[in-house]
Amino acid sequence: MRDANREWVFAQRPDGEPDMDSFELRESDVPEPEYGQLLVRVRYLSVDPYMRGRMRDAESYAEPWSVGDVMAGAVVGEVVESRSDDYDAGDVVTGNGTWGDYSVLDADSVAPVDPSIADLPAYLGVLGMPGRTAYFGLLEVGEPKPGDTVVVSGAAGAVGSVVGQIAKLNGCRVVGFAGTDEKVEWLTDDLGFDAAVNYKQVDDYGAALDDAAPGGVDVYFDNVGGPITDAVFPRLNVDARVAVCGQIAHYNDEGVPTGPRKLPQLIASRAKVKGLLVGDYVTRFEEASEQLGEWVATGELGHRETVVEGLDNAPDAFLGLFSGDNIGKQVVRVSDPADD
Amino acid sequence: MRDANREWVFAQRPDGEPDMDSFELRESDVPEPEYGQLLVRVRYLSVDPYMRGRMRDAESYAEPWSVGDVMAGAVVGEVVESRSDDYDAGDVVTGNGTWGDYSVLDADSVAPVDPSIADLPAYLGVLGMPGRTAYFGLLEVGEPKPGDTVVVSGAAGAVGSVVGQIAKLNGCRVVGFAGTDEKVEWLTDDLGFDAAVNYKQVDDYGAALDDAAPGGVDVYFDNVGGPITDAVFPRLNVDARVAVCGQIAHYNDEGVPTGPRKLPQLIASRAKVKGLLVGDYVTRFEEASEQLGEWVATGELGHRETVVEGLDNAPDAFLGLFSGDNIGKQVVRVSDPADD
Repeated sequence: MRDANREWVFAQRPDGEPDMDSFELRESDVPEPEYGQLLVRVRYLSVDPYMRGRMRDAESYAEPWSVGDVMAGAVVGEVVESRSDDYDAGDVVTGNGTWGDYSVLDADSVAPVDPSIADLPAYLGVLGMPGRTAYFGLLEVGEPKPGDTVVVSGAAGAVGSVVGQIAKLNGCRVVGFAGTDEKVEWLTDDLGFDAAVNYKQVDDYGAALDDAAPGGVDVYFDNVGGPITDAVFPRLNVDARVAVCGQIAHYNDEGVPTGPRKLPQLIASRAKVKGLLVGDYVTRFEEASEQLGEWVATGELGHRETVVEGLDNAPDAFLGLFSGDNIGKQVVRVSDPADD
Repeated sequence: MRDANREWVFAQRPDGEPDMDSFELRESDVPEPEYGQLLVRVRYLSVDPYMRGRMRDAESYAEPWSVGDVMAGAVVGEVVESRSDDYDAGDVVTGNGTWGDYSVLDADSVAPVDPSIADLPAYLGVLGMPGRTAYFGLLEVGEPKPGDTVVVSGAAGAVGSVVGQIAKLNGCRVVGFAGTDEKVEWLTDDLGFDAAVNYKQVDDYGAALDDAAPGGVDVYFDNVGGPITDAVFPRLNVDARVAVCGQIAHYNDEGVPTGPRKLPQLIASRAKVKGLLVGDYVTRFEEASEQLGEWVATGELGHRETVVEGLDNAPDAFLGLFSGDNIGKQVVRVSDPADD
């Protein structure tokens, strides 16, 4: 068991594309839990695109980080010291922690992890916030109906891969956009997508959509923005629904990006476009976790995690999100029981 | 009574901004109604921005006109020959007709006009399609709640002026954008808008909004698009609603116009943006007509029509919509009982 802690600190606001200068690894003492808290040995930590927003000095849904803050995010880990009656040392839990060897978590904000359903990293993906985002975003904003054509951008990511599969479970035709042939094969061969487009190998996204979704688009689940989204909008069917979950193509833009105006395209289709934050559904998280857990346990919901080894590499894992390094959920393995 | 007919024909597809070359006045015989139809002496005809869309050779919600088609639109007129049991000669009706001295209308598609509620031109505006568009667009897409701040672009137009007043009747704070001081005064002094901005006298629409709507925007009813809309989007409150009714700033654009990307702005606000066509509410038109008629009769709903004199000037009246000539509903007076 490590008797000291290391943690990544937000060192500098990025201008455009972030790089290693934004991060600094600091040695510190192992933190002390207060009453109601748990000291957790982090096994896996989550890196997520939304974290780029917290690096901006601008009010948004997630509080901006101050330079000097410890990087925060979802973790899975083992309780080493409990100051709560609800958990004991040895329990495996997930919750919002830090990019460190150890995290202190409030006991009332964590959830237990059941390794018999899935390995620990899945609790940061399909059984964590990304899975719940897919669940509520697709079902509540996308409102899929049997026979609908559902298009997903960032389809091989942590959210997109779950969206497409839930759409299939709802009787939809599903088309995904992803950035490598390996991702495309995973979507179509393993996850049951009806079609997938490697957008890095295609010049004309509109023509690719006309091939893959000849009847137009009823639901668009957007994780990406940019030219893929530009191609989808003119192909939205009457009363289509667009869930705007992420816009990773624009997260590193400085200033307001420009592109084709989309509002004129909404009148004829009467399409609905709605922004999505999973936190709005917090009172229904249990419903989602139960359903997702059941689908994972029965094998109806496939999942995959890209594991980057070692806390040292957490910034690289984060930066890799913007170049599409990950298939499924990108996580960092911080420790292993054998290391303790 | 004229014993011949004149009618405007769609003569040429415009390239960008339309001009008189798109229209040709043709002499013709007075048409003959068939069984179930009415021959109507047109008193007023409606010119509407959506007609620009029908001039394009592109599939949309309204069928594109072919070159050589008679210009079509809503009219109010007096039945001169009825081949229906439901109407008699002398009845005043409104329905979809043509830009002509006479129109033949299907009796089952017209509505009776009650001049005791309002003068005839109002039946093309507040008591016609624009009024119903405002009614359903605001109430069904905008979902205004008491205390909401509602922003309307094209606020002094046929639709916008009704939207703002219905929002006031629902307990909202209402801010309008319009293009002349006279329009601004009409909105604030006569119609009860809380604030109105003459966008032609203002450089920074964002600053104007920060003044007029310091608490942000809960409902945006967009008739215009362009830079006003660009200023509203970053100011949408959490769970805001945007009704996309018209985008007149872009109707004369060739190709797809570009501008600031709006989808990235929707995530933090979780705003809903939805296109609007009044035809989707056809089964509830009677409800709207009754309510609007009641509000007009009691004086709770003010209205104004800009009357262009003479069928000769119908194209000018239409073209004037794009330069904001009209206050309230733009109509053309085709005939008067005294002329018959």
